[in-house]
Amino acid sequence: MTQEEELHPDDVQQHLREVQDLLARQKAVENLVSQQDVPRHEMVESLVHKQQQAELAAKLEELHSADIGYILEALPLEERLYVWNLIKAERDGEVLLEVSDAVRESLIESMAPAELKAAAESLDADELADLAPDLPPEVIQDVFQSLDPEGREQLRAAMSYPEDSVGALMVFDMVTVREDVSLEVVLRYLRRFEELPDHTDKLFVVDREDHLKGILTLECLLINDPEKEVAEVMRSETVISFTPEDEADEAAQAFERYDLVSAPVIDSEKRVIGRLTVADVVDYIREESEAEILSNAGLREGEDIFASVWDSVKNRWAWLAVNLVTAFVASRVIGLFEGSIEKLVALAALMPIVAGIGGNSGNQTTTMIVRAIAMGQVEPSAMKRLLKKELGVALFNGIAWGGLLGVLAWWLYGSVSLGLVMTGAMALNLLLAACAGVIIPMLRERLGADPAIGGSVMITALTDSGGFFIFLGLATLFLL
Amino acid sequence: MTQEEELHPDDVQQHLREVQDLLARQKAVENLVSQQDVPRHEMVESLVHKQQQAELAAKLEELHSADIGYILEALPLEERLYVWNLIKAERDGEVLLEVSDAVRESLIESMAPAELKAAAESLDADELADLAPDLPPEVIQDVFQSLDPEGREQLRAAMSYPEDSVGALMVFDMVTVREDVSLEVVLRYLRRFEELPDHTDKLFVVDREDHLKGILTLECLLINDPEKEVAEVMRSETVISFTPEDEADEAAQAFERYDLVSAPVIDSEKRVIGRLTVADVVDYIREESEAEILSNAGLREGEDIFASVWDSVKNRWAWLAVNLVTAFVASRVIGLFEGSIEKLVALAALMPIVAGIGGNSGNQTTTMIVRAIAMGQVEPSAMKRLLKKELGVALFNGIAWGGLLGVLAWWLYGSVSLGLVMTGAMALNLLLAACAGVIIPMLRERLGADPAIGGSVMITALTDSGGFFIFLGLATLFLL
Repeated sequence: MTQEEELHPDDVQQHLREVQDLLARQKAVENLVSQQDVPRHEMVESLVHKQQQAELAAKLEELHSADIGYILEALPLEERLYVWNLIKAERDGEVLLEVSDAVRESLIESMAPAELKAAAESLDADELADLAPDLPPEVIQDVFQSLDPEGREQLRAAMSYPEDSVGALMVFDMVTVREDVSLEVVLRYLRRFEELPDHTDKLFVVDREDHLKGILTLECLLINDPEKEVAEVMRSETVISFTPEDEADEAAQAFERYDLVSAPVIDSEKRVIGRLTVADVVDYIREESEAEILSNAGLREGEDIFASVWDSVKNRWAWLAVNLVTAFVASRVIGLFEGSIEKLVALAALMPIVAGIGGNSGNQTTTMIVRAIAMGQVEPSAMKRLLKKELGVALFNGIAWGGLLGVLAWWLYGSVSLGLVMTGAMALNLLLAACAGVIIPMLRERLGADPAIGGSVMITALTDSGGFFIFLGLATLFLL
Repeated sequence: MTQEEELHPDDVQQHLREVQDLLARQKAVENLVSQQDVPRHEMVESLVHKQQQAELAAKLEELHSADIGYILEALPLEERLYVWNLIKAERDGEVLLEVSDAVRESLIESMAPAELKAAAESLDADELADLAPDLPPEVIQDVFQSLDPEGREQLRAAMSYPEDSVGALMVFDMVTVREDVSLEVVLRYLRRFEELPDHTDKLFVVDREDHLKGILTLECLLINDPEKEVAEVMRSETVISFTPEDEADEAAQAFERYDLVSAPVIDSEKRVIGRLTVADVVDYIREESEAEILSNAGLREGEDIFASVWDSVKNRWAWLAVNLVTAFVASRVIGLFEGSIEKLVALAALMPIVAGIGGNSGNQTTTMIVRAIAMGQVEPSAMKRLLKKELGVALFNGIAWGGLLGVLAWWLYGSVSLGLVMTGAMALNLLLAACAGVIIPMLRERLGADPAIGGSVMITALTDSGGFFIFLGLATLFLL
């Protein structure tokens, strides 16, 4: 690669196309040979094939492991495994870290225990901890045995923290310095490194027992006179640090708020035990918002787009089952009023409007509340105020949209009282939606559940059944 | 602050509580005084008041501007403006950058043009460009006049790029060095700086005309022998750079994929014109996923949780209007079959199940497809394969869940043929949902629209009307 060929963001798609081309050419040759069905072609084929394989392997070798991960994600299973086998064994570990859970599963399934062990051994303790849940227990056991005592301790620590904690995200490699040396000494010390840990934007200043005394940013190190002592230029006040027990979500917000690149992780005695970097935080933010979007649509996890029908069915069935139950309940509510519908069939045509708008409005409310809770902005005192506001919005919408629908119902069916029932039912159902939209996420938060997940099913269930009940009930009372 | 008081991620909530306490105490004194209604208290009140105000101002002064932004977001309008007025004028600009659009609007409304001008003048060109859309035109004009020619050029450039481009995110401050100097010279050069630009993890190596020749990471600068020349140790191959026209989304993916902290932005002649940093990318990622979650729930933008009812109504009406139209269409579809419902009222109770499950299933499909498109993994060739898979899932679910519902309908209403119609309608509507779930986002992508936005309304509209039509149509054909 010459300097002219700089890596542009769309290059990874270029890489993907090149790999796909190579695979297609390979397939074309294979097809040609199999059509001819002549044994003497075997040698030719195998030569061409080997050449193409070598070309593909060379192409893969020059790619960043993240790009290889991307390509593996985009290939159907058969081609994915073919490419996977062409990747050098020593890169297996880092590539496994780059792919999604679903694709990782498909790759790990294709590997022998010995290969897996070799791949795992090429990783740091924190990376290994990320991979461990997907590895067979005997492989983990083997890898664990092969670690040095410090590595074992780190792996044990990293695996012991819950998934959404700082401990699960932290890395162990870092550079620490003492406060009583000059910057010149630090500069000379750094020159002894082959490389610095990723995302080193600051060095941690510690004492003999690893207690955090302050931080020395590389900036500070570079702009100050090398004669100065570390203690003179380090920052010891308002150092942002985390404990492994802190929630990853709060750490992510702190990284965003204070534009951090890395931060020390300390134990209860202020000893530095690890480091949190922006790369892990960015991955976490992306994964969290993915999870929220997926769960809003009722998907348990991301799917390999080339997964089998059966894998997809398993990923999606739980949500459909819940919806089936709530839809069935709503259906039984309608069943209660079959007599009324028989007398006035217009009710059947109008009732889904009341239920549907209620659900949409409730989801708008709950999304706002969940956002506000996630930002930590909803104190109990704010709840009353929010409820009042949401009820205000619902009342306005109920009268405005309900009124419009009332007029439409009157026009369609020539009955003023049907129109009035429609308006009243809309207003009441929107008020119900507003209450549910505020209270459900707040309650879930107070009960320690993630307010973002599953709220929309509950609200829709309530506004469906509630909407049918309110509309058909009012109609039965006033129209029949 | 002593070293003991380290900043922890939950500290910002602590700050918020302290500010709220101070505000509450102030209010308590005011209430007490106003109850007494005696003029001689006026002086006392004003003394106490002034003291409290000073305490609050001092508290605010020691906070990071991001934390002040957070506190402003969490306060109701009246208290928010009170706190805002206590913030030193020279910090106004940076705080305005930290708050959400909705809150920024409320703050800017409260400021006089001269104050706004002062606040704006304290910002860099790229920050100013972010703020500009919210400022009154005459203020922008004034600020523009006060800039030096380079600043004007930068501001003009920053404002000329579309919102979701790299140009809109880039910053202009950076450190560049020449390739023919020694690292020792670079180190001495850096010592002349008071501070380095935020997120400087690499220096850009340029020639006399600012053409990018390579990058020199701070790591490289620190670990290498200072006698070496920049050209010896800089990286000139596979340098990841962007152009201002690149899409921000692609840049964000590249930052994630390659774990970047900063990257050069170059023009068409490879001259370095700016820099993209991870802080801006993280903000962008968060804003994008927020926007997706909000728009999924039919909200145009984030709401200030203390906004007026009227502001909320304006933010939400468009989505409700669209839903009203689609619900009305579905209602007219039912209207077509009123005769059938009159004869067999069980249809009215069962039809929402068919429509509802179809909508949920379609949303699952479309969410998967939108994810895959966002990852750039869906090539035209993959479309056929995906459609086949989704139809497979739909057929399976249709038979399984449809069969279950058919049995339930049979059990409830004692009619085998009603059960069979139910099963058939479920299967057909799920197949419709699967087709729509694949095709709608793909078409939107091809037409240049954001596939993530608004897809769910269209699918729900289709599966509602389609579900009613299929179920009532089959019932009319086979049962009556």
